[in-house]
Amino acid sequence: MSSTVDVRAAVFTGPQQPLEIQDLRISAEPGPNEVLVKLAASGVCHSDLHALDGDWETPAPLVLGHEGAGIVVAVGSEVSDLEVDDHVILSWTPSCQKCEFCVSGNPVLCQLANETAYQHVFFDGKPRLSDGEQDVKSFLAVGSFGDHAMVPASAAIKIRKDAPLAQAALVGCAVTTGIGAVINTAKVEPGSTVLVVGCGGVGLNVVQGARLAGAKQIIVADVSEEKLELGRTFGATHTVNSRKVNLVEAVRELTGGRGVDYAFEAIGLPFTIEACYEAVRRGGTAVVVGQVADGVKISIDPFVMSDQEKKLIGCNYGSTRMSIDFPKIVDLYMEGKVDLDSMVTDRIKLDDVNEAFAQMRQGKGIRSVIEY
Amino acid sequence: MSSTVDVRAAVFTGPQQPLEIQDLRISAEPGPNEVLVKLAASGVCHSDLHALDGDWETPAPLVLGHEGAGIVVAVGSEVSDLEVDDHVILSWTPSCQKCEFCVSGNPVLCQLANETAYQHVFFDGKPRLSDGEQDVKSFLAVGSFGDHAMVPASAAIKIRKDAPLAQAALVGCAVTTGIGAVINTAKVEPGSTVLVVGCGGVGLNVVQGARLAGAKQIIVADVSEEKLELGRTFGATHTVNSRKVNLVEAVRELTGGRGVDYAFEAIGLPFTIEACYEAVRRGGTAVVVGQVADGVKISIDPFVMSDQEKKLIGCNYGSTRMSIDFPKIVDLYMEGKVDLDSMVTDRIKLDDVNEAFAQMRQGKGIRSVIEY
Repeated sequence: MSSTVDVRAAVFTGPQQPLEIQDLRISAEPGPNEVLVKLAASGVCHSDLHALDGDWETPAPLVLGHEGAGIVVAVGSEVSDLEVDDHVILSWTPSCQKCEFCVSGNPVLCQLANETAYQHVFFDGKPRLSDGEQDVKSFLAVGSFGDHAMVPASAAIKIRKDAPLAQAALVGCAVTTGIGAVINTAKVEPGSTVLVVGCGGVGLNVVQGARLAGAKQIIVADVSEEKLELGRTFGATHTVNSRKVNLVEAVRELTGGRGVDYAFEAIGLPFTIEACYEAVRRGGTAVVVGQVADGVKISIDPFVMSDQEKKLIGCNYGSTRMSIDFPKIVDLYMEGKVDLDSMVTDRIKLDDVNEAFAQMRQGKGIRSVIEY
Repeated sequence: MSSTVDVRAAVFTGPQQPLEIQDLRISAEPGPNEVLVKLAASGVCHSDLHALDGDWETPAPLVLGHEGAGIVVAVGSEVSDLEVDDHVILSWTPSCQKCEFCVSGNPVLCQLANETAYQHVFFDGKPRLSDGEQDVKSFLAVGSFGDHAMVPASAAIKIRKDAPLAQAALVGCAVTTGIGAVINTAKVEPGSTVLVVGCGGVGLNVVQGARLAGAKQIIVADVSEEKLELGRTFGATHTVNSRKVNLVEAVRELTGGRGVDYAFEAIGLPFTIEACYEAVRRGGTAVVVGQVADGVKISIDPFVMSDQEKKLIGCNYGSTRMSIDFPKIVDLYMEGKVDLDSMVTDRIKLDDVNEAFAQMRQGKGIRSVIEY
């Protein structure tokens, strides 16, 4: 029998149940195209809460967490671009690097990842963890709420060693999703007008993405004055408290009746997606970035869509090409052009992960980061 | 008082009423940036029926018709690019050539046209026709169901004189809308897989647009076997009778489970738009081309939109730049690369226009063309 590594992890046992801290095992020997990563940090993301709350059908037992960074401790025999001691950010979409989506620059849509990682198993269809009695799956083939994770080599993106790993972990989901939605998905041009609905972890990164892209007007909407203030910190030029005023009317007013060029929904609720669609100008683009619960529907007017040539498009993971974007965003952070420090509002231990979800439910802070 | 020209025209007097053939008057002297056109031909389009049926709020009295071609008989003092005897196709979106939309290559979204022509008046907010007692509006500032029409010079697009005007008239709406949806709006690449729902005047032109663009698979869907056969004539490679089988399932089967790269809805019904959205692959684009009645809503799953990065986009008038596309399409027709002859399935006199609508309601033929 091959040697194993102990993994201390927060395990999902079923919807609405607190995560259980358990001692699991993983092989010490990665498959040919895999690497074993010792996690340094993991963000606690709203998508983890979706799984935990049962908004998304999620199998149990499973190690939750998908926004991680760490250090490579073992590499498979076929891995040529990573070595032990490399610092990496984990991608929750591994790329097969062969399918039409990977080959055409859209690895977030990877065929093989859709068939495997999105079912929380690895490319061979199997899990990697065990609790001694049964197999344990890894959320999105990452499972960053564990102090070790086996991942496909394509899901471990090498970054510079001088970047702090707590901040880098956030690049593994929220930061890339938000900035990527602006840069990759919508391709916002300098001088554009932008609406961002929701000032959570993703929304604030849409804001800083819009700032990076040179947007001239960045309107943020939220129901919390505190989050709106955060929006300003990250680059918003105008704020709308959508609990107090009608969002679409407020945007019309702020844009001289015209509507915005781009609207980003970063919450995942039907009525805010519909509001984004309404708030864009003729020929404008509304982008669904927020993660929506299963089974939700939105209702839109298709006459307006054709008459005004509006576009409603989906954004998964900021349409990222991970191997390009992760190191680039880390560089921008190290150069002071992307703010990651302000996003880490709480540093916790793995044992306190359930408390982090409680805070998230109350809308407190931006990101709790587990440090191992 | 300035001299006038008599205009024999089919006048809309209210929803669900037969059009009345009346003798109207128009000034013989165009405004500085206008031209007077003697119509040679006008297509009878489904959008006229939408107005006639009261699907769209339309003022009366109004000369219907928006798909016309003819010969310039008088030009305004400031018009430099048109002269008497020029052959022209009329555009139902005049372009102000100054607003952000016109300047950025999207004249179908022209700000001034939206404020005027879409209310069936001219750039100065006034109608041009009179019945002697009251003003009469012109549908979309065209009114091609009259033997003369005054139009902004930007709405009269010069074409070669050897092209037959009955066929050329169709370039003024259905042909440009269909081909433009493929070439301009969606930018279909060679080798793509395409679904076209609806084999009417617009749908068949989407089909030939897809053929021009080099699509490898062109699936057409309709409820009429006769129209599906027409689809094949215009370039479809596969047909689906959506009265007999489930459209989305049939498309999945024809594409090996993948879905199509592009789906074009060319009818204007909610459930077919929803089917197009469902039928596209991950990262694919569904285009709303069909003209929908006021107040209709569609219902879509936004989780699928973000997760699969699907795009749902509107197409107005094939996103055409009229002055570029109209002469280009006429050239393609003259070179045998676009089929306009098969589209003219009936040639009628203005007096028979109500009969043409009766035929359209029964789904007979592709286009009746009024010849003056």
